[in-house]
Amino acid sequence: MQAEQVDARRAVEELKELADLTGGPDGARRVAWTDEWAKAREWLRGKLEEIDGVTEIQTDQAGNLWATAPGESEKTVLLGGHIDSVPNGGWLDGCLNTIAALEVMRVLAPQQRPVTLRLVDWADEEGARFGRSLFGSGAAAGTLKPDDVRGLKDRDGVALPDALAEHGVDLDRVNEAGRQLENAVAYLELHIEQGPVLERMNLPLGAVLGTFGVKRHVVRFTGQHAHSGSTPMDVRRDAFIAAARSAIAFRDDAASRDDVRATTGFVNVRPAIVTAFNGWCEMSLDQRALDAGVLADMLAKAKEASERIAEEEGVSVEWEKVWEIEPIPFDEELIAFAEEACNEVSGSSHRLPSGPLHDAAEMARLMPTVMLFVKSLRGLSHTKDEDTPEEDLEMSVQALHRLAVRTMEWAKK
Amino acid sequence: MQAEQVDARRAVEELKELADLTGGPDGARRVAWTDEWAKAREWLRGKLEEIDGVTEIQTDQAGNLWATAPGESEKTVLLGGHIDSVPNGGWLDGCLNTIAALEVMRVLAPQQRPVTLRLVDWADEEGARFGRSLFGSGAAAGTLKPDDVRGLKDRDGVALPDALAEHGVDLDRVNEAGRQLENAVAYLELHIEQGPVLERMNLPLGAVLGTFGVKRHVVRFTGQHAHSGSTPMDVRRDAFIAAARSAIAFRDDAASRDDVRATTGFVNVRPAIVTAFNGWCEMSLDQRALDAGVLADMLAKAKEASERIAEEEGVSVEWEKVWEIEPIPFDEELIAFAEEACNEVSGSSHRLPSGPLHDAAEMARLMPTVMLFVKSLRGLSHTKDEDTPEEDLEMSVQALHRLAVRTMEWAKK
Repeated sequence: MQAEQVDARRAVEELKELADLTGGPDGARRVAWTDEWAKAREWLRGKLEEIDGVTEIQTDQAGNLWATAPGESEKTVLLGGHIDSVPNGGWLDGCLNTIAALEVMRVLAPQQRPVTLRLVDWADEEGARFGRSLFGSGAAAGTLKPDDVRGLKDRDGVALPDALAEHGVDLDRVNEAGRQLENAVAYLELHIEQGPVLERMNLPLGAVLGTFGVKRHVVRFTGQHAHSGSTPMDVRRDAFIAAARSAIAFRDDAASRDDVRATTGFVNVRPAIVTAFNGWCEMSLDQRALDAGVLADMLAKAKEASERIAEEEGVSVEWEKVWEIEPIPFDEELIAFAEEACNEVSGSSHRLPSGPLHDAAEMARLMPTVMLFVKSLRGLSHTKDEDTPEEDLEMSVQALHRLAVRTMEWAKK
Repeated sequence: MQAEQVDARRAVEELKELADLTGGPDGARRVAWTDEWAKAREWLRGKLEEIDGVTEIQTDQAGNLWATAPGESEKTVLLGGHIDSVPNGGWLDGCLNTIAALEVMRVLAPQQRPVTLRLVDWADEEGARFGRSLFGSGAAAGTLKPDDVRGLKDRDGVALPDALAEHGVDLDRVNEAGRQLENAVAYLELHIEQGPVLERMNLPLGAVLGTFGVKRHVVRFTGQHAHSGSTPMDVRRDAFIAAARSAIAFRDDAASRDDVRATTGFVNVRPAIVTAFNGWCEMSLDQRALDAGVLADMLAKAKEASERIAEEEGVSVEWEKVWEIEPIPFDEELIAFAEEACNEVSGSSHRLPSGPLHDAAEMARLMPTVMLFVKSLRGLSHTKDEDTPEEDLEMSVQALHRLAVRTMEWAKK
């Protein structure tokens, strides 16, 4: 099995071919459970059918597309991606994963292999139409429960179960997709970074450490609004000033730590008029870290800071949890393989966490998993302006190939 | 002329009588240019007609009500107030001024006086229906221009000129009210403080130094929003964080100075979602000071701080002026008289600026002017919860009487 056999240029040309087929001047339009998505899938299926050594192509009960190249063992290494996109999306997220895996299958499927290799094109990673991301991988992993999503509707009022049915999927049976994972021993995924880290370091490739844990809260401050003219500064109970000080404390704490995030998103004040200071302010806080202990400490420090500041400003503060997910670290051995693959192809590598979630996070709950990142220009994604230099894309395909080869050797043991 | 002649208790009873007539469980409803306001005016006119020595009661071209008690000289001391209120207003703002002046007229009009004394009930101080405050006093002072307000409409679409006409006022002739001021040599006004200063000092009365100058701006920060997960802290260009730091700088600067104000009112961010930091933020800044130089320095310091912070946060900042008015200091001699009156009546006094504007600000442009403040409980006004202890109200009426007597003696010279 030689790395040089992969035709990375062909993969880039196929990305463009897909963009011509299901994109345009307004960006990609491969939203899951639509005709354009089905068209992209048909295109992919046609490519897979031409590969010597791929003996079976099937769609599972959750709508995931599988292509299997049997090896000497039933133990299976998975190459995963998603061909669906957000509306007006870019040409790389997430079809790069799928098309790179297609090219890797082309090289490896005809060869003798110690273990089985499967490509999976997950259904509806983005959740762009119904708001539930990681649909297909979550269904296979068992974290998506049919009853939790049964009531979802799209903007036109179409119910999720009806949209699924149009594509041959019965919501009540989606968890049966889990059977596809029975022999899986490793999961590999390539994705654009969607952030600025690799570009700023002038590196094409990186090995991903895992996906961040997230703690998301609404923080509310309550004081007492009063007239901006008649109320001296020292008697004010200004909820916005308390919130502003807290937002800065949250940011400064995150900036002082190694590779974590703290983000103030929405900010609402009342009465929100020019002639009064605000008696009420709420804002969202989204905290992320790869280490659960660090994340818990960030939250504790943020609460402490907000309570100290609230007391100093004469206001009260309350925290409401909105959502959370634990950090999902990837496999140490596979991270090392990914790093080696990046080094071999590009002469360098960088370990970095993933800010956004990926299907890999669902798989990492079940088996050794790793991702490769390739540079994103200006950190842009989910827009038609999303881009990556073609030479970097080529290197990413080569790195996925080398990572797959190494992982199969490891899986044999 | 003896101070003891004033019946301050009667004034308090008349305040309650007016509240019964034109108020109720939802507060005062004497909004200018409405039937309730006209009813309150009729009630006041009836009281004035009973006063011996009041020789003329008239309404001028701007709708202001005047009652004249001629003295030995045509030189005139004015006692001003406004019987109009905001909707669901309190029982004191601004009819305290009018009713206290009524009581003072009762005592002083029948007596021999060195100068003429006039009570004026200004029309539409609040601007509650059409949004233009200080209507009657501004018309008399010439600062209100008919063309600037001709297009104003109330919530029901009624045009200001039509509402004025219903009350016998021709918008194009309102500046003729200025003739009422021809012989005026001093203007005196009593008002509730509408702030917490006197209550916190446990003082009933204060002498007002003038009305704050105001500089009002919208401050806009522009960075670049991006994903809360994929974007490291050190590469963010977070417009809200820059705004929050600036708001605190504006507040801290004001808090370090003597008796000024800086207020962040509305705050708007974009994209205002939980999964991104904000690339855009605008907020209002309302700065107030009694000294024009101090106010100018506050603005300069605020701009400097915002520009330094914007640079540190990698964002741009722009300032848009929304409104401004210069500080209007009251007359030093009259302030001293007001202070003496407070001391004589209550054994104490405090000099303080006025945060809100008053009709006195219009008069101060033209003649020596001063105001008396009486304590507001909890700093509340423009609400039915507005209140002042009755013993303090009685002292305020006594102080206005003493101030009027002193000012007439001074005016004679």
